[in-house]
Amino acid sequence: MSQVVNGTDVSPDHLKALYAPIDVELTQSEEILQRELRNEHAAVDEMVRYGCLLGGKRLRPALLLLTAKALGVITADHLTLAAVVEMIHTATLVHDDILDDAVLRRHMDTCNARWDNEASVLLGDYLFTHSFYLASTLDSTYACRTIGKATNVVCEGELRQIRSCNNFELGEEEYLEIIEAKTASLCACACRLGAYYADASTEYVEVFSEYGRNLGIAFQIIDDLLDVAGNESSVGKSLGTDLEKQKPTLPLLHVLSCLKGTERTEFVNALVEGSNGHEIMKSYLQRFQSRAYCLEKANVYASRAVSALADLSDNEATRILLQLPEFVIHRSH
Amino acid sequence: MSQVVNGTDVSPDHLKALYAPIDVELTQSEEILQRELRNEHAAVDEMVRYGCLLGGKRLRPALLLLTAKALGVITADHLTLAAVVEMIHTATLVHDDILDDAVLRRHMDTCNARWDNEASVLLGDYLFTHSFYLASTLDSTYACRTIGKATNVVCEGELRQIRSCNNFELGEEEYLEIIEAKTASLCACACRLGAYYADASTEYVEVFSEYGRNLGIAFQIIDDLLDVAGNESSVGKSLGTDLEKQKPTLPLLHVLSCLKGTERTEFVNALVEGSNGHEIMKSYLQRFQSRAYCLEKANVYASRAVSALADLSDNEATRILLQLPEFVIHRSH
Repeated sequence: MSQVVNGTDVSPDHLKALYAPIDVELTQSEEILQRELRNEHAAVDEMVRYGCLLGGKRLRPALLLLTAKALGVITADHLTLAAVVEMIHTATLVHDDILDDAVLRRHMDTCNARWDNEASVLLGDYLFTHSFYLASTLDSTYACRTIGKATNVVCEGELRQIRSCNNFELGEEEYLEIIEAKTASLCACACRLGAYYADASTEYVEVFSEYGRNLGIAFQIIDDLLDVAGNESSVGKSLGTDLEKQKPTLPLLHVLSCLKGTERTEFVNALVEGSNGHEIMKSYLQRFQSRAYCLEKANVYASRAVSALADLSDNEATRILLQLPEFVIHRSH
Repeated sequence: MSQVVNGTDVSPDHLKALYAPIDVELTQSEEILQRELRNEHAAVDEMVRYGCLLGGKRLRPALLLLTAKALGVITADHLTLAAVVEMIHTATLVHDDILDDAVLRRHMDTCNARWDNEASVLLGDYLFTHSFYLASTLDSTYACRTIGKATNVVCEGELRQIRSCNNFELGEEEYLEIIEAKTASLCACACRLGAYYADASTEYVEVFSEYGRNLGIAFQIIDDLLDVAGNESSVGKSLGTDLEKQKPTLPLLHVLSCLKGTERTEFVNALVEGSNGHEIMKSYLQRFQSRAYCLEKANVYASRAVSALADLSDNEATRILLQLPEFVIHRSH
């Protein structure tokens, strides 16, 4: 299995450079997104335009377009679908920020902070339904079916996660299942659509889906790590909400697995009472080298993503797809 | 234009009797709904099953199936789509109850009361995405496109409504536009799908869509009337939330249009302060005969629904469709 972690840190500019081979098409899909997210009613228009700014990395459309390019040519269908997956991602962000009581996202006020929770519920719904409509403008039902299924699995994962808050006995396996559902399924879906609409063989559609799935798991492990150990000003969004919500993510599960007896009980009590859980957590993260543990785990999935593409013929887009897992692991935002 | 209001009151049993010609098919679509809304994870399963119980009247699937039967034969596609429109309606109910801080629906705890707002946001999303997936299992993209568009218009209407809370200058025309979007578009969609998948001509698809649209507007006017003038124990859900949220619905707009000077100012202040707005409203409703005004307005749309079907050949299902507007107006629940 290939190793992708080499210890260097990567910046947002690095990501921009990675997207260079699909720069034109990413801009085109962005234009579709912005054209679609207009509304004749000023109050609605204001909200959907704002929501549209909240996504940042454009990872899902990039995965879709890079997959298409790796296999051949990016078509008009790909551009539409790239806008669709980003719109779905934005819908989940808008609703996630309600769940997390987050006030900051990509250095901007979240929708719930700018308006309120009610308006954010509806804005997320608006984005979800519009993305489904946009997917249905394609000729075949494949995109609708794939997207409908993947987004349903995303919601299932989110529901499982919210219902497992407070459950400090959650096993690592179940944590991994949950993040696979809530994050990796949409990444897998993006790659799957990229491949399918490039007329790839069934085998290659599965290969790319597997790539996206593993990349998504690695991505979410790092996201969960950043939430407890990241720097709010560089990440650009509200952090620490996982601990506040007593969400059993990997860093917490690792710390808990290292603690025994009174120390464990006291830590759990601190988390439940919401007193100084975050401070104690930081010291434990260091003591048990939980950061390294999480990075290593993320690296397993990043390496699997790379391995999935092992048989692929070399081209510019393929090379970027092989580099993306490294970015995902070393990002600080 | 036909008159549908005759002053008699109707009960839930009356509605059941109206559905008699599609009894078997309504049960079959209910079975699809319940089969689809199972999940292998206990915590998710518990929530989706519960959500499934919250719908009551099954108006949208009934409209779809009655339309199909009026035009010919109910097919397997109709049964699936009937489950889809009910699932979408349930998703909107789950999210509406968050917006309204409602605790009671169909004599049961709402999801937000039983769990919390966060879980309800996700449950609504789960239902939305599952309904889109289910729609995509049909052969053509027509259902996905029609449903995607209609649900997006529903969200647009809800967003316009929430952004118009506090706006006591809202015109009746804009109120009607909003309820057409948030309620009537899904009723129109149900009828449209019923007709299209019965291989109806384009003309008939439009005729039935027009029927559903007008029926939906009448339905929502009555819903808004019940919220300020209904009896919570017979309606079976939290009432009075529109006034609390300062939502400019027809009864309120009518009262406001009758008030001038100090009286108007004092009433608006009472609403804004949330003091005794509901009590004052009740006395004004009586003084200005606002109930009669709303019923008359609803009757205009109910009559239009009946007129839309004027050229239809007579059969059992058609006769029920012609009676439904009357039920919608006279319901007390």
